[in-house]
Amino acid sequence: MTSTDIATRELENPMDLTEYLFRRLHEVGIRAVHGVPGDYNLAALDYLPKCGLDWVGNCNELNAGYAADGYARVKGISALITTFGVGELSALNAIAGAYSEFVPVIHIVGQPTTRSQKDGMLLHHTLGNGDFNVFNKMSAAISCYVAHLNDPRDAATLVDSAIRECWIRSRPVYVTLPTDMITAKVNGDRLKQPIDLSLPKNDPEKEDYVVDVVLKYLHGAKNPVILVDACTIRHRALAEVQQLVEASGLPTFVAPMGKGAINESYKNFGGVYAGNGSNPGVREVVESSDLILSIGAIKSDFNTAGFTYRIGQLNTIDFHSSYVRVRYSEYPDVNMKGVLRKVVERMGKLKVSHIPQITNKVPESEQNSSQTITHAWLWPTVGQWLKERDIVITETGTANFGIWNTRFPAHVTAISQVLWGSIGYSMGACQGAALAAKEQNNRRTILFIGDGSTQLTVQEISTMLRNKLNPIIFVICNEGYTIERYIHGWEERYNDIQPWDYANIPKVFGGEDGYESHRIKTRDELKDLFAHKEFSSPSGLQLVELYMPREDAPAALKLTAEAAAARNK
Amino acid sequence: MTSTDIATRELENPMDLTEYLFRRLHEVGIRAVHGVPGDYNLAALDYLPKCGLDWVGNCNELNAGYAADGYARVKGISALITTFGVGELSALNAIAGAYSEFVPVIHIVGQPTTRSQKDGMLLHHTLGNGDFNVFNKMSAAISCYVAHLNDPRDAATLVDSAIRECWIRSRPVYVTLPTDMITAKVNGDRLKQPIDLSLPKNDPEKEDYVVDVVLKYLHGAKNPVILVDACTIRHRALAEVQQLVEASGLPTFVAPMGKGAINESYKNFGGVYAGNGSNPGVREVVESSDLILSIGAIKSDFNTAGFTYRIGQLNTIDFHSSYVRVRYSEYPDVNMKGVLRKVVERMGKLKVSHIPQITNKVPESEQNSSQTITHAWLWPTVGQWLKERDIVITETGTANFGIWNTRFPAHVTAISQVLWGSIGYSMGACQGAALAAKEQNNRRTILFIGDGSTQLTVQEISTMLRNKLNPIIFVICNEGYTIERYIHGWEERYNDIQPWDYANIPKVFGGEDGYESHRIKTRDELKDLFAHKEFSSPSGLQLVELYMPREDAPAALKLTAEAAAARNK
Repeated sequence: MTSTDIATRELENPMDLTEYLFRRLHEVGIRAVHGVPGDYNLAALDYLPKCGLDWVGNCNELNAGYAADGYARVKGISALITTFGVGELSALNAIAGAYSEFVPVIHIVGQPTTRSQKDGMLLHHTLGNGDFNVFNKMSAAISCYVAHLNDPRDAATLVDSAIRECWIRSRPVYVTLPTDMITAKVNGDRLKQPIDLSLPKNDPEKEDYVVDVVLKYLHGAKNPVILVDACTIRHRALAEVQQLVEASGLPTFVAPMGKGAINESYKNFGGVYAGNGSNPGVREVVESSDLILSIGAIKSDFNTAGFTYRIGQLNTIDFHSSYVRVRYSEYPDVNMKGVLRKVVERMGKLKVSHIPQITNKVPESEQNSSQTITHAWLWPTVGQWLKERDIVITETGTANFGIWNTRFPAHVTAISQVLWGSIGYSMGACQGAALAAKEQNNRRTILFIGDGSTQLTVQEISTMLRNKLNPIIFVICNEGYTIERYIHGWEERYNDIQPWDYANIPKVFGGEDGYESHRIKTRDELKDLFAHKEFSSPSGLQLVELYMPREDAPAALKLTAEAAAARNK
Repeated sequence: MTSTDIATRELENPMDLTEYLFRRLHEVGIRAVHGVPGDYNLAALDYLPKCGLDWVGNCNELNAGYAADGYARVKGISALITTFGVGELSALNAIAGAYSEFVPVIHIVGQPTTRSQKDGMLLHHTLGNGDFNVFNKMSAAISCYVAHLNDPRDAATLVDSAIRECWIRSRPVYVTLPTDMITAKVNGDRLKQPIDLSLPKNDPEKEDYVVDVVLKYLHGAKNPVILVDACTIRHRALAEVQQLVEASGLPTFVAPMGKGAINESYKNFGGVYAGNGSNPGVREVVESSDLILSIGAIKSDFNTAGFTYRIGQLNTIDFHSSYVRVRYSEYPDVNMKGVLRKVVERMGKLKVSHIPQITNKVPESEQNSSQTITHAWLWPTVGQWLKERDIVITETGTANFGIWNTRFPAHVTAISQVLWGSIGYSMGACQGAALAAKEQNNRRTILFIGDGSTQLTVQEISTMLRNKLNPIIFVICNEGYTIERYIHGWEERYNDIQPWDYANIPKVFGGEDGYESHRIKTRDELKDLFAHKEFSSPSGLQLVELYMPREDAPAALKLTAEAAAARNK
């Protein structure tokens, strides 16, 4: 009989289930919970303060979900609370995005009482057909674990499992909390034992075998390179990869989704590889390499400039969270972390070939007297202005392609949704990231978002103001959905948007003296703004209307959009 | 061999599938399509103008879904276009609401090509696992019909079936349109035959049998009454019920969700019955009646003031779209429309008992010298100002309970989401309804929404401005989620919201001279505003900040909230 089997009256240290759940959230590093109140979760929210958790109070659930995603990408994990039906469904797109992009979000849904559900009552927020499981099933399809807290006897165990699975598998979990379970008693003594968040160890014999194979090819290679992608970040292999990059000195590149995974100030950092969309000189080096150590790759269309990778499997070793593949040989059930650690220990000194250098110098073709802010000019210029430890968020569209041309300082966290690509995501993510940044000794949070995307989720500017956050938000004003124009409908009205006065949005959202707005139309104005101390180390939210030509886009976006248009035919 | 089996080259009048689909939408009365562009639907949008359809261009998909719901409630049916994954999931809450509340919305989702799906390509907007069916399954659970337009041979047939099912069953249907199918050829000659939207006829013998049973009880009753609810509207039995009410002269009441179903200017209209939340005098009459003709009932918690109905099944005849129930005898597969038509023809003259009269007179207790705008004062006063053919939308919260105390003029359409109850819904619905109103010879569209709810979906004010709509929007400024305070957390911060400058929101959303804003804090100010011609017959959008006390709520809301709080324990 385990402790959780004991009836409430026998518990030595009875604790309300909600307190237990929230204390566990605190234990894994969560300090603020995102969400929207609803009558099936209200009583649970009462427990937040005593568990050391702040309530963010987002404007709507989709935005709250995006924000939880952003918070998790900075802090490692996050929690979102919504209400049954109406609330949880509004957040589904954000949860699916977190699932797609491997972001650990604990989604807690307040439900009607277990009794009401059993009786199939005709309650508000239901489909009116007595079926209380429809929404559960929807979320289950985009969660790596589901915990229905319907019974005090196993509720604490399920909470612990949900948090562990969320962390380990780095994907959303779905936790339902019926209102009658909010005060159900569980064994509080369980909290003395922290949740085990350690990865299962690789089988040592198998791990050694794989390491030997990797080393054989590595030592035999003439011009090996390292290519780092998103799953390095999501599956927490950053330290191992950082060591590999440092110790080997090998030419190192990132895929777009891998931006921020390694210290880009290193001498052996060569820039972004994305097939035809690569930084200058990168493609030649990567594609002529006889061994690519490909770490955590997600070879999606937008991450590869439209599937324009040209690296053969015979020249590749793929490292993943659950397997390693050397050329065509697969080694399942081996986590890259253990393998990489041993590779670094045993590799010795390697041959290092020529490394191209991406810099934040504006290309010569753009060093003209024009004052127009173009993408070719903007992104290297932004790179000159960024600081160590910045969090840089780029919206799907011109921004998340443009950022390929920015070389980051050390320890930058980059956030964008290259695979899922839900427009509007980054405004919500910015709120979550800025809150996490505040908890991490006031790192800067910088967002680049288009005017079209801003319109989807604009109200999260209000949440940032309400929570006294100080992100720097650049709204790229280029009159609509530019990425879509490049795919289809260059002049069509459906790619236009209503013209807004973005600069005054914080004002109508009650910003008072907690913000500053700027309208920037020339290169000189932007350089002046960057030089301004109160802007670059702001105490309040900064909103910049950044005017750029409607028809301008980063070169990589043009290529990718062309490929997408061709594929849609 | 049917016409749709013929290969494209043999079609006499080949037509692009998208044109066929859009011409069918036009045929059933749709003139504007809601949605957000995305790369998987862009090329389809090109077909809208030539098919006589406007593109609304909403700010986000959830709002577009709400708007489509509002448009359908006025026009009878509507269409929504989103893009694969990110777009469709954002709209799910709105679609679930339409499913729950029986609103016919055709949800068209642009998808990657059939080939990409078959190959399981790693595309943006996917979960990255090659599974293209996850989102289909989610939507299938909240749709009454699903049509995957994957094959030119059956695509036109599926389009027709989808539209018919949507109309007949009055619920959302889900239609997927892969990008390579946009230009697939179908037989355009099919358009010569309109889609059959007629209901299946009742079996005449069975119908006569049921009519006889109904008449037996009706003629035997001493004080019969009529109680009209939502499904009367949703299943299009309005004409039949209207005739019953007129011809019988029986005391007639509506459930809250039935508001707007009958002409409330009739002498025999007695007000709202909702158990303990009924209009004054109504409960006594209904609950002492020996025969309640209950038409299209949805006895949900919020529609019955927390399950406080006290009418026995022995005194009830229930009329529904798919069955009639007389006391405990069920008659399945009989639609109420045919039955009601014959009951009216054959009933003769009936005994009519006392009918209570709800008026728009402010109750005496509120006729004081106070200038505070209270709910008890507001709703009858609004009733004095409303006009025939108005569309009145009330948000879940104080407004959709308050409206129980407004007696409508003739031919008012009432919109609220009493069962699904998703906050923020009504702002989107207002956009769709106002557009539909414009198509119906400029009916007025009037929205009452709380400040908390406005924050969820505020950007649809922009869509209204962009489409040059002229709704009258009252934002009830009472500092947060009042309905939730009544359920739980009276003073808790989670029920507070960020203070916004609502009056200036149209300005930052590019309203220019297409709107007017008003700040109303006293009864006299509101009466003056009502008397003002440009306000009451507006050429542009009117936004009213209506200040009401934080702690005030309609009596029915207090009762319902109390019941909800007790049930959550």
